[in-house]
Amino acid sequence: MGNRVGAFAALAVGQSLVEYVYESEPLGPDDVAVDISHCGVCHSDLHLIDNDWSSSQYPLVPGHEIVGIVSEVGGRGRLTVGERVGIGWQRSACHDCEQCRAGNENLCPRQEATCVGHMGGFAQRIRTDGRFVFPLPPTLDPAATAPLLCGGVTVFAPLRRWGVREGAHVGVIGVGGLGHLALRFLKAMGCHAVAFTSSPDKRNEALNLGAAEVASSTNAREIRAHAGRLEFLLCTVPARLDWITYLETLKPNGVLCLVGAPRGLLQLPASQLLSGQRAICGSDIGSPSAIREMLAFAAEHGIGARVETVPMRDVNAALQRVRENRVRYRMVLAN
Amino acid sequence: MGNRVGAFAALAVGQSLVEYVYESEPLGPDDVAVDISHCGVCHSDLHLIDNDWSSSQYPLVPGHEIVGIVSEVGGRGRLTVGERVGIGWQRSACHDCEQCRAGNENLCPRQEATCVGHMGGFAQRIRTDGRFVFPLPPTLDPAATAPLLCGGVTVFAPLRRWGVREGAHVGVIGVGGLGHLALRFLKAMGCHAVAFTSSPDKRNEALNLGAAEVASSTNAREIRAHAGRLEFLLCTVPARLDWITYLETLKPNGVLCLVGAPRGLLQLPASQLLSGQRAICGSDIGSPSAIREMLAFAAEHGIGARVETVPMRDVNAALQRVRENRVRYRMVLAN
Repeated sequence: MGNRVGAFAALAVGQSLVEYVYESEPLGPDDVAVDISHCGVCHSDLHLIDNDWSSSQYPLVPGHEIVGIVSEVGGRGRLTVGERVGIGWQRSACHDCEQCRAGNENLCPRQEATCVGHMGGFAQRIRTDGRFVFPLPPTLDPAATAPLLCGGVTVFAPLRRWGVREGAHVGVIGVGGLGHLALRFLKAMGCHAVAFTSSPDKRNEALNLGAAEVASSTNAREIRAHAGRLEFLLCTVPARLDWITYLETLKPNGVLCLVGAPRGLLQLPASQLLSGQRAICGSDIGSPSAIREMLAFAAEHGIGARVETVPMRDVNAALQRVRENRVRYRMVLAN
Repeated sequence: MGNRVGAFAALAVGQSLVEYVYESEPLGPDDVAVDISHCGVCHSDLHLIDNDWSSSQYPLVPGHEIVGIVSEVGGRGRLTVGERVGIGWQRSACHDCEQCRAGNENLCPRQEATCVGHMGGFAQRIRTDGRFVFPLPPTLDPAATAPLLCGGVTVFAPLRRWGVREGAHVGVIGVGGLGHLALRFLKAMGCHAVAFTSSPDKRNEALNLGAAEVASSTNAREIRAHAGRLEFLLCTVPARLDWITYLETLKPNGVLCLVGAPRGLLQLPASQLLSGQRAICGSDIGSPSAIREMLAFAAEHGIGARVETVPMRDVNAALQRVRENRVRYRMVLAN
């Protein structure tokens, strides 16, 4: 094998993935090589394949919810060969800017992503910066943990950063890859979660996942029934929603947090933010320390994603199911 | 005199104020009567006179930035006759709801305002709930302090609530009644304030008031020169501005806080909130504890409003100057 890595790549915009072999670069002092056992499939992978963010380079190997075993460690490495680890969206940071020094590496302006301009996790192996490779608590199931590395921390980090506490009433819009994890985390945090979903058949599942209540995400009357009740409202879907009605569900000092960006403009009356001192914000993955805290929390509370696991060679069928929003709730490719 | 109170009232929507005498209700156990020495004029008073918020009742006695001397105290009163006190926008709260119990009386859904449905401070005297009457530190000048009771706490409270700290770079949009106080508070807090103003002739004054830098509030190029530099951006003017360019001035995790509500809708791309985890929020006056903290801070740092003081009988001319935005920086009526 040497440095040759078997992978699946899109050779051009929007194409099906094909088997693809590339030479990995030599290991730098901070790098590790990881033999990949599992990789989650995130909607971001589809956006990259489709070049929706005009940042894709082809051949493109997607994949950034990676679990595997360390197989090589660079000179400065703090990981050990044989250790089970996880890798998420972020690949590197400058470690020198104001944000990095404050422990907000996910806000570093010079950060790089695992599969943007680098070969990602739909592969046998990956070489990456060990400072963004996280040892997994041994009780965590590898397949169910892969989606935590991106989807999990994306919903966990804002709950922590905004101080969501036990007993808080928290809304979650969307019961999908991210939303179902948010419900599980909130249940374990002792919060009263209200799930908003557009799928009637997900209502019971949302309750099983930890929601205390379920409502339609698109029926204004059902949303309005929660007016003034939520301290925090996490929107996990990049959809254009009735923000004005959703803002009304917030208590005074409540926060609406977006982790997916709908196209177009948010439109809302400023008076709605003044009255009740509401806030609307975005959250962008999570820092390495948030990932470590999330993994420890998941291990303590036995939290993993509910996954469909398929062999990595079936990647194109898997991507199609993700594209059609048919996965319950996260697709994971296994080597 | 008895319970007869001389005041100035609008008898119908948009009218000039006329002399008006009313009978004040008897003193309740929590109430105090205050002989008014000064009352600031806020844009909200004009909105009330004009019934812009569809909440006005006539005869309407405006005025909610009141300084005076306690002249009577109800049975449960904790104030003493002869004490100098201040009264702001809020008149009462339920003291029993979740927000009141958390010390956020300004968010109480059953709150009442000093001059909405009650006779306000353009008068010789006011009777009001003593729990919203604040002893003034003796070093504070009465005229310069009157505007602190509403305008001052409106800008001070969000700086504290959002944790603005010494050394922070903070923008202030608008150098008027509220903005000039924000600049003074920020200077005393050791912050690096950037004033955004549409008035070229206020540039030097903004520097004198405590700004470290000044920029145009309407020239996108001048605003953009501050891209990525501000931790907090306080908008004190109810104007429709270039929010997209202003959001770009925020650092990661930065907050844009509105204390005046522009008409129409805020329109901004959600992606701008996600990237850099920015937030946009509103703030609504301040709680009694914020008012007390603000008054103590003002006394410690010698902060007052820069005022134009005129006799209360000149109220209509004073209102006209406020209407024309000609006051530098706050109009105060004196008995």
